[in-house]
Amino acid sequence: MRKQNIIYGRHPVLDALKEGQSIDKILLQKGTRGIYEKELRDLASREHIPVQMVPKEKLNRVTGGTHQGVIAFAALVAYQRLESILPFLFEQSQTPLIVLLDSITDVRNFGAIARSAECMGAHALVVGARSAAPINAESLKTSAGALGRIPVCREASLSLAIKQLQLSGLSVFASDLQAEKKLPDLDLTVPAAILLGSEGDGVHPSLLRKTDERFIIPQLGQTDSLNVSVASGVILYEAMRQRMAE
Amino acid sequence: MRKQNIIYGRHPVLDALKEGQSIDKILLQKGTRGIYEKELRDLASREHIPVQMVPKEKLNRVTGGTHQGVIAFAALVAYQRLESILPFLFEQSQTPLIVLLDSITDVRNFGAIARSAECMGAHALVVGARSAAPINAESLKTSAGALGRIPVCREASLSLAIKQLQLSGLSVFASDLQAEKKLPDLDLTVPAAILLGSEGDGVHPSLLRKTDERFIIPQLGQTDSLNVSVASGVILYEAMRQRMAE
Repeated sequence: MRKQNIIYGRHPVLDALKEGQSIDKILLQKGTRGIYEKELRDLASREHIPVQMVPKEKLNRVTGGTHQGVIAFAALVAYQRLESILPFLFEQSQTPLIVLLDSITDVRNFGAIARSAECMGAHALVVGARSAAPINAESLKTSAGALGRIPVCREASLSLAIKQLQLSGLSVFASDLQAEKKLPDLDLTVPAAILLGSEGDGVHPSLLRKTDERFIIPQLGQTDSLNVSVASGVILYEAMRQRMAE
Repeated sequence: MRKQNIIYGRHPVLDALKEGQSIDKILLQKGTRGIYEKELRDLASREHIPVQMVPKEKLNRVTGGTHQGVIAFAALVAYQRLESILPFLFEQSQTPLIVLLDSITDVRNFGAIARSAECMGAHALVVGARSAAPINAESLKTSAGALGRIPVCREASLSLAIKQLQLSGLSVFASDLQAEKKLPDLDLTVPAAILLGSEGDGVHPSLLRKTDERFIIPQLGQTDSLNVSVASGVILYEAMRQRMAE
């Protein structure tokens, strides 16, 4: 069964997975065991779809009653794979500019970043499977439709994604309030990926260590820091400015 | 009488005005005439406080019943005057950077712009008396407190404010999607004011004509334009970057 962008029932959810539909996440009733759970988890993990165990009451609330213990949220836009985006960019002689988002779960921030990224000529967004905002009506709206125009790649591990980008020749730069290097002094004319963290916590230290360089947006005022969507816009603008000046 | 930041009743509102309290706006019951109305309007106009005529029911809804036909919304932060800010900046040998907002009425956008402006070292925000977002709990929160740290000047006419800035030696630049000059090519190291319009309508043409130069943030993607708070952040970053490079 289908209700807006929610797929519910054991077979419909499994079928959606088998057909390769883009799913934001799956809610599975606590205590579900056996072959069904195993098959579901195998299919979901192949596509990096998070499976969350929830009490029956939660499923009741979302569906109004008939769910057979499992529901899936369909993504409004199909996720893509980083490994299929990168070769395409190099083929087209583009200098890649990729945006990685670590734990940016707020749909409005996610949408706003997608909008700026598409505006400023970034080629893709990369999000972690377990810590991303969904591509739903709200994020799509805040993005002014940009989420339908810029590829979004969902990766099981951002750490592996960073490795993959580096192996493909990209430099990975992370925004970090502790960094000394200032944004205008960063060379963003090279093939680059920019890693952004959430406003409260920043980029996770384990990911920070994997990046090639950390930088900070210089500030003159007393306010703690910029809003994450403004910061993203500023960083992407700097990349665009440098690339246009070449 | 006072309820949160609402002042209600004929005398309390008049007293607040006489004491020079910062008021965002006044709601006056439709049909109010006579000496009271005249005195109220005189005092309000001197401080550029908008007076809005509303039906009695609206006042009832806001106060719960006792209002005597008039209520005032106290601003959480005191408004300042442009004419007292500018001499102070020059005295301190600062190169002024002022942000003018035309019809940015959304509290969240207003707060976000204030946050970026304070972060990037702008010296003041200037808003039009009849078309500004209030300094209330929501805008203060979205600004991360910046609205308490950057002066906000409320001017009866933005057109006169532009004139005043130009007479003080500032160049007034307007963000305009029709402009040909690109932001990175603008010289923002001079004493400058930046005029920003709302996302839908941009800067009003009558104001645009009064500015020294129009510019556009270059874009590479297909998305219509940047979100207004991101655009403001980018413009203020460019000003800061140029001034730091000097």
